[in-house]
Amino acid sequence: MAETIPHWLSKRAELSPDQTAIELPDGYHMTFLELASASQTFAKKLAENGVKEGSHIGILSNNSIDMVITIHALSYLGAVSVMLNTRLKEEELNYQVKDADVSFIIVSDEMENRIRKMKFPVSVLINTFSQIEQSTEKNTELKTEINIDNVFTIIYTSGTTGFPKGVMHTYGNHWWSAIGSALNLGLSENDKWLATLPIFHVGGLSIFIRSVIYGIPVYLLEKYDPALIHEAIMKKDVTIVSVVTIMLKELVQLLGNNHYPTAFRCMLLGGGPAPKPLLNQAKARRIPVFQSYGMTETSSQIVTLSPKNALEKIGSAGKPLFPAQLKIGNNKGEHVGEIYVKGPMVASGYYKNETATQKALRNGWLATGDLGYVDNEGFLYVVDRRNDLIISGGENIYPSEIESVLAGMEQIHEIGVVGKNDVKWGQVPVAFVVKNEEHVTSEDIVNYAKNALANYKIPKELYFVASLPKNASNKLLRNKLIERLEKRNK
Amino acid sequence: MAETIPHWLSKRAELSPDQTAIELPDGYHMTFLELASASQTFAKKLAENGVKEGSHIGILSNNSIDMVITIHALSYLGAVSVMLNTRLKEEELNYQVKDADVSFIIVSDEMENRIRKMKFPVSVLINTFSQIEQSTEKNTELKTEINIDNVFTIIYTSGTTGFPKGVMHTYGNHWWSAIGSALNLGLSENDKWLATLPIFHVGGLSIFIRSVIYGIPVYLLEKYDPALIHEAIMKKDVTIVSVVTIMLKELVQLLGNNHYPTAFRCMLLGGGPAPKPLLNQAKARRIPVFQSYGMTETSSQIVTLSPKNALEKIGSAGKPLFPAQLKIGNNKGEHVGEIYVKGPMVASGYYKNETATQKALRNGWLATGDLGYVDNEGFLYVVDRRNDLIISGGENIYPSEIESVLAGMEQIHEIGVVGKNDVKWGQVPVAFVVKNEEHVTSEDIVNYAKNALANYKIPKELYFVASLPKNASNKLLRNKLIERLEKRNK
Repeated sequence: MAETIPHWLSKRAELSPDQTAIELPDGYHMTFLELASASQTFAKKLAENGVKEGSHIGILSNNSIDMVITIHALSYLGAVSVMLNTRLKEEELNYQVKDADVSFIIVSDEMENRIRKMKFPVSVLINTFSQIEQSTEKNTELKTEINIDNVFTIIYTSGTTGFPKGVMHTYGNHWWSAIGSALNLGLSENDKWLATLPIFHVGGLSIFIRSVIYGIPVYLLEKYDPALIHEAIMKKDVTIVSVVTIMLKELVQLLGNNHYPTAFRCMLLGGGPAPKPLLNQAKARRIPVFQSYGMTETSSQIVTLSPKNALEKIGSAGKPLFPAQLKIGNNKGEHVGEIYVKGPMVASGYYKNETATQKALRNGWLATGDLGYVDNEGFLYVVDRRNDLIISGGENIYPSEIESVLAGMEQIHEIGVVGKNDVKWGQVPVAFVVKNEEHVTSEDIVNYAKNALANYKIPKELYFVASLPKNASNKLLRNKLIERLEKRNK
Repeated sequence: MAETIPHWLSKRAELSPDQTAIELPDGYHMTFLELASASQTFAKKLAENGVKEGSHIGILSNNSIDMVITIHALSYLGAVSVMLNTRLKEEELNYQVKDADVSFIIVSDEMENRIRKMKFPVSVLINTFSQIEQSTEKNTELKTEINIDNVFTIIYTSGTTGFPKGVMHTYGNHWWSAIGSALNLGLSENDKWLATLPIFHVGGLSIFIRSVIYGIPVYLLEKYDPALIHEAIMKKDVTIVSVVTIMLKELVQLLGNNHYPTAFRCMLLGGGPAPKPLLNQAKARRIPVFQSYGMTETSSQIVTLSPKNALEKIGSAGKPLFPAQLKIGNNKGEHVGEIYVKGPMVASGYYKNETATQKALRNGWLATGDLGYVDNEGFLYVVDRRNDLIISGGENIYPSEIESVLAGMEQIHEIGVVGKNDVKWGQVPVAFVVKNEEHVTSEDIVNYAKNALANYKIPKELYFVASLPKNASNKLLRNKLIERLEKRNK
């Protein structure tokens, strides 16, 4: 039976009108009553601009309160927010706008010039937050309830290969995700969650949904700035921060030999496997890092370490959240296999892409394309993307393991490992390295590797490069490294 | 879309195997892994005794670990637990067993003799916990998942009038109820919830479901004993206790001029309106009483005070829980009207009673039959049962208001107020009083009433009686008082 709940923002404003919803580093803050009221007003202005129930509305903005208000406003109209990555190029944006049937793009004022220069299908309207703000309010009926089976957002998977796919998240997907996280982390009225991840990704967006459902403030950073995060934890009573590896690395450096206040209870680490040396550094500083595993299709984390295990199970992403299940598809009878997940936070499919949906989802189980294993206590260890697996002389080599080990060298800033075709071994690992310091040599790196890795895992070639190819979500594009390799060897 | 989640007890045992699930005052405790394992074993023994998916199985027991194991065991088989009140008389039990299509009654060892003497429909099997324990285990497949739309329990509404009706609770009803409560009270890994309310009522049962979903221990009292509750709060780290008014009254007396430890964070008060003098006494002792409102049909509380408002809004039942909604049906254009509630914790109907279901539920809104009003900040005040309303000279009189005021007299143990037909006024209030002390007179009571109540609310007749008529759930049966009144006046 399709469940109906009160509109979550209206409900939160009823329950906790004076509670802070959003706080900025400059001290500005907005209560839930103010956020609900602003969102409802903006909804009526959007209606005046032609937004209707079922409309697909693109949002192109960096993190801002306006952006949060827009997302809530669209939900008051029953319209769907299509979250557009601000790092996308014209061609990529065009693809997503067309694929998602976007009729109207709402853009931040600062992005207006950029987007007005782009060529879109004729039917796409473009308006800035400020332009809509100046509209009159249409006397339209706003949603008072949410049917949790309705689609709330469409977010394109970053797709390290192939065309991106539009993941449809229902209100229920976001709801169950928030509840699953609360059942893992607990819920305190003193919580304050820092958001610096882009809201156009599900990892950033989900913080704002949790805030509404839990009744806790979001400490919003409009731009990523490690010094501001550090200050927010040290002095602004932030208790939870969602980060990716690179952020953790910078925060550990900023912390130096200090410690965070004891009220800071969770550094939620997502976005891919983290180097073990970094996790050990964090542990030495008593930083409560909770590794997690998730993706756009799972509406953010679906497997996460718990408070009890965060410091014991370093390197593990934890156990599946309460409403979720996990299994490993045993590839070739081995310990490591493809990770499958299931649960009510898993999106039900890709927009207008039944083929991709059927390929990814069977009986509710999502084939993640990631490889991993589960230890005898039920903890997940994510090993790598299945497509990135290197097979060398019959041995499986996981590029991220090599990357994780070598990233422990202080002289290395970043590293990407891929397989190179080899007559004798089938494939061998080779590495692309971005140096931190000038004086490191290939020999230094190989010597370091020899102490930590089996011989067949030691990169057979090393290329020093200025940067690594990444996608708009800052994920390493190993297929681009392989292309570079092929060009070099032509 | 019907949502599927892992079987909640198996999942909890995976996430928190060593966490205490149930603790007894004698120090015995059982972990979630042990509880899951015992429930799975018991399920296989029940299967050996013929219990199948879809079977309706009566459970007749006072609070015990065996009873909790039985409920979980039945869920592992996909069978439905029909919770039978141990205070029911033969005829009442017979009615419920027949009405709910119960094929098999599982009875506590101590109740065996009583029930074996009763005459049931031929097809009902009766077995004790011990007898089933001695069975062999059938090699049957147990549920690993829960479809939240499936029926988990049937509990008969105590029904102060008419025949009881079997309320069907789905797994989802219990799930959403537990989540709604967590979003209100918060969730701490240090929580421990005391259960002394009967498990055959939804108020007691729901504590065990929350325990599994939250991963916190239940401190289980097999019998109601105020001294044991007092000790559990003072010395056994209990943080939350669910009580009804009479229990709160006794606990306040036991506490005297002491205070509870600060870790004790919630005395969840349900089961009907509470006398204001008692709430004031509790406030003076800084007892964190959270009044709540709910019924069997709402899977326990659906409106509850929050930590922030518990001490300010004395007399209010609070605001509807996050997934729930509330409205007042305005009777005759007045402020007070019938209370309607809606939300995914509201049961979808009564077993095999479409007429009653359609009468109670319209578009998801449950007509509660209770009267109340909402203040300008959204807080609910429950006034009375609609059927109990007394109309006197055009004025509405709520018996529970008079009862609440007069219960503040130390000399009064209990009081029940009903309307008596009156030629001049239509109706007038009259009171049945159980005295605490011999020397109180009708005049004393009327004088006390004059200071607190409008003249038309002062009982026009007072009857001193030894006890008040109650149903099996300890609720005052005002219709029985009216019958007594009619007999007196014949």
